[in-house]
Amino acid sequence: MTTKPRAVVLLSGGLDSTTILALAIQSGFEPYAVSFRYGQRHEIELTAAARIAAAAGVAKHILVDVDMRQLGGSALTSDIAVPKSKTVDDIGTEIPVTYVPARNTVFLAYSLAWAETLGAGDIFIGVNAVDYSGYPDCRPEYIEAFERMANLATKAAVEGTQPIKIHTPLIHLTKAQIIKTGLSLGVDYSMTTSCYDPAKDGTSCGHCDACLLRRKGFMDNGLVDPAA
Amino acid sequence: MTTKPRAVVLLSGGLDSTTILALAIQSGFEPYAVSFRYGQRHEIELTAAARIAAAAGVAKHILVDVDMRQLGGSALTSDIAVPKSKTVDDIGTEIPVTYVPARNTVFLAYSLAWAETLGAGDIFIGVNAVDYSGYPDCRPEYIEAFERMANLATKAAVEGTQPIKIHTPLIHLTKAQIIKTGLSLGVDYSMTTSCYDPAKDGTSCGHCDACLLRRKGFMDNGLVDPAA
Repeated sequence: MTTKPRAVVLLSGGLDSTTILALAIQSGFEPYAVSFRYGQRHEIELTAAARIAAAAGVAKHILVDVDMRQLGGSALTSDIAVPKSKTVDDIGTEIPVTYVPARNTVFLAYSLAWAETLGAGDIFIGVNAVDYSGYPDCRPEYIEAFERMANLATKAAVEGTQPIKIHTPLIHLTKAQIIKTGLSLGVDYSMTTSCYDPAKDGTSCGHCDACLLRRKGFMDNGLVDPAA
Repeated sequence: MTTKPRAVVLLSGGLDSTTILALAIQSGFEPYAVSFRYGQRHEIELTAAARIAAAAGVAKHILVDVDMRQLGGSALTSDIAVPKSKTVDDIGTEIPVTYVPARNTVFLAYSLAWAETLGAGDIFIGVNAVDYSGYPDCRPEYIEAFERMANLATKAAVEGTQPIKIHTPLIHLTKAQIIKTGLSLGVDYSMTTSCYDPAKDGTSCGHCDACLLRRKGFMDNGLVDPAA
């Protein structure tokens, strides 16, 4: 029996990161999942992440506290209202107020630290440049620059024992394609949550960008969102 | 009266970062200092950072919790012994066990997030490639790669309103030159602490790499370390 290489998987409890976890497993990695309590308005996604990690049988799941709330500047970590629309066509084309300053850089930096201590060189993140083209830190050129920096940052990379690869298999997929991929791998999307502004009982709002894009993704597959 | 541009300054409470803070002020910036409670063995340096920030009259000083202890892998965050030597000549040339995996990447990522919410484009970090050439994330090529990534990461940088500049004015200086610079700016080094392994009352051990390099830096200026 050969030992599987380890990979760090950023797991938010949402649709994209849950698909990424399934893809990492399919690719032959032993997954180590990391979730962040960064000051988001609700912790429903963290509960979902823990459930998903357990169901997927990850080697380890850690929850990391990184307080980004004291920085402000985003609807996801402060009292700025989450924008709501009727359909995906109403979603603006500018960078939305749900953008959290440098969030993926902070998350990837921490994941890089964990990867090095695990002896892992592979990091999976569910960024997507199609539906969320408004977020600068979801674009291929950003990911490439992060990877390049990472390979100059760690002892393991610099000594040549463990080069760093940032895996973004969803980056060029539509939400419908992501869902199709996940379903083919047996992902149970009823366990995931994507809403930016859920009710206290976890019910999705149905009208934030994340809810609308997700619903359309299932509709395009002839399905109803099982978590809606 | 013109408004000074804001700059984020990474302040550990040590000799290098305290010099950096003085340099940022001298360069005409309004300093915003950030310190990290990342799981280091002692909090003496955080007390020093608060004292130094207050004495320098920074616009704001924040203390950020980022738990890196659960990752392990370093003498600074775990039970691995801090190496001790008799003189600087005994310090090894390999990357030391006091290296904390991806620490500067995590710290710079968070500082980048804060800079964006502050409307700042300038970040000062006291890395040094001469005395600590063993740390990969203190080298110029690493800093350049981080800066390049940062300019692709944030909304402000991508929209062109606030490009990011990582300032490392100490990177090519010896410890003696750093101390000389700081003294010319009126830095009170008795407020700083550099020891990796201080006693509970804050007394420096005198024999870790940081203590030895620092002592030699003062000696080369014909001085005695005021914090020894």
